[in-house]
Amino acid sequence: MKGKLLYEGKAKQVFQSTEDEQQLVLSYKNDATAFNGKKKASFEGKGRYNNLISAHIFDYLKEKGITSHFIKTLNETEQLVRQTSIIPLEVVVRNVAAGSITRRLGIPEKTVFQPVLTEFYYKDDSLDDPIINDAHALLLTDLNEDELVFIKQAALEVNQHLQAFFDRVGLQLVDFKLEFGRDQNGSILLSDEISPDTCRLWDKESGSKMDKDVFREDIGSLIDVYDAILNRLEAAK
Amino acid sequence: MKGKLLYEGKAKQVFQSTEDEQQLVLSYKNDATAFNGKKKASFEGKGRYNNLISAHIFDYLKEKGITSHFIKTLNETEQLVRQTSIIPLEVVVRNVAAGSITRRLGIPEKTVFQPVLTEFYYKDDSLDDPIINDAHALLLTDLNEDELVFIKQAALEVNQHLQAFFDRVGLQLVDFKLEFGRDQNGSILLSDEISPDTCRLWDKESGSKMDKDVFREDIGSLIDVYDAILNRLEAAK
Repeated sequence: MKGKLLYEGKAKQVFQSTEDEQQLVLSYKNDATAFNGKKKASFEGKGRYNNLISAHIFDYLKEKGITSHFIKTLNETEQLVRQTSIIPLEVVVRNVAAGSITRRLGIPEKTVFQPVLTEFYYKDDSLDDPIINDAHALLLTDLNEDELVFIKQAALEVNQHLQAFFDRVGLQLVDFKLEFGRDQNGSILLSDEISPDTCRLWDKESGSKMDKDVFREDIGSLIDVYDAILNRLEAAK
Repeated sequence: MKGKLLYEGKAKQVFQSTEDEQQLVLSYKNDATAFNGKKKASFEGKGRYNNLISAHIFDYLKEKGITSHFIKTLNETEQLVRQTSIIPLEVVVRNVAAGSITRRLGIPEKTVFQPVLTEFYYKDDSLDDPIINDAHALLLTDLNEDELVFIKQAALEVNQHLQAFFDRVGLQLVDFKLEFGRDQNGSILLSDEISPDTCRLWDKESGSKMDKDVFREDIGSLIDVYDAILNRLEAAK
């Protein structure tokens, strides 16, 4: 099933599929990185959690009419996806202030954003993924204005569905990052992963952090938290 | 004429006018700062150049139908302006890549932007004036969406006039920063100063830098350069 290794990122390997050249195999690694790779560690079992949680989320979004590159899980740590060329944009949606925005703009943590905030970051490790505006996004990617509007709207729609999805299992969706790719026909498709690596999730009762901030801030066991999330999702299914 | 000192910035003092409480006296200082105040110096005569060059520019813009807070020069270092409350936004227009954008986004110096790039920075010294997007600007200022569009359009219009203005005197307008304020009626008005402190200007023949980069990069005499610009403007009048 797995052909040539096409790309190795910080948290995933991407292989050609031997059965369909328009499909890829994503293999989730056990590595965790933060602060653009400045902090690194490995956690036995992490790849499995990211793979399975991401699959749950893409399945849910599909039910809600939002297609993505996700086709199916292949095993505990791998999933089959449609091949896209990734647009070098991190699309961040923020419901509540946390993380970099509190430091960058001096906004207190837990400030509720009304309306919801959308941000673009330019995906470039050598530049530390700088925040950009719409004009920069048009300059630095092959997106046109309509496609940029489409991506923002899609991100806000995903936000509404994910808020409901996590609410069911007692989690507040604070913020998250999406990536989009372009398929063989030029269509834009939700890609990458959606997991506690890419979402900030706070327990609705206790307020405790249940995402990669546990690792970023050294405030608990990443595996315990990811395990709790997968268990809640399995139980709610 | 000069009443109470209302505010002292890095390059100007702002006094109440004793004759009209809706007017202010801007007094240009000889201080130069760069990199958000990390580099500082004082140049005898600088305040005079900024005052007189800024007056030339606001007069020219007025001829072209763009009103600003500028009323008239009072003396060599002071000008009378309409009172506005400054919107905490630095509006940057870039025709050609230079300065921070080359480092932030890895765009080579001298890259021509087509279309022209507009950027907003949040005016907050304690945060180092971070770059922001439209959604942040709506969150952090009292501007509404229409006013934000108005400011962007006004900045692009100013750009067209300033390009022609500087072209006449052999200077290429690379980029510049504008600030806007709100007057007593709530109307938005072009404010602050427009000078070689706030514009990047390259000599069209030699390509040499004729603006505050001379000070930022220690590549010549700031006073000689500002003097040359004022002389060219006087000669072209």
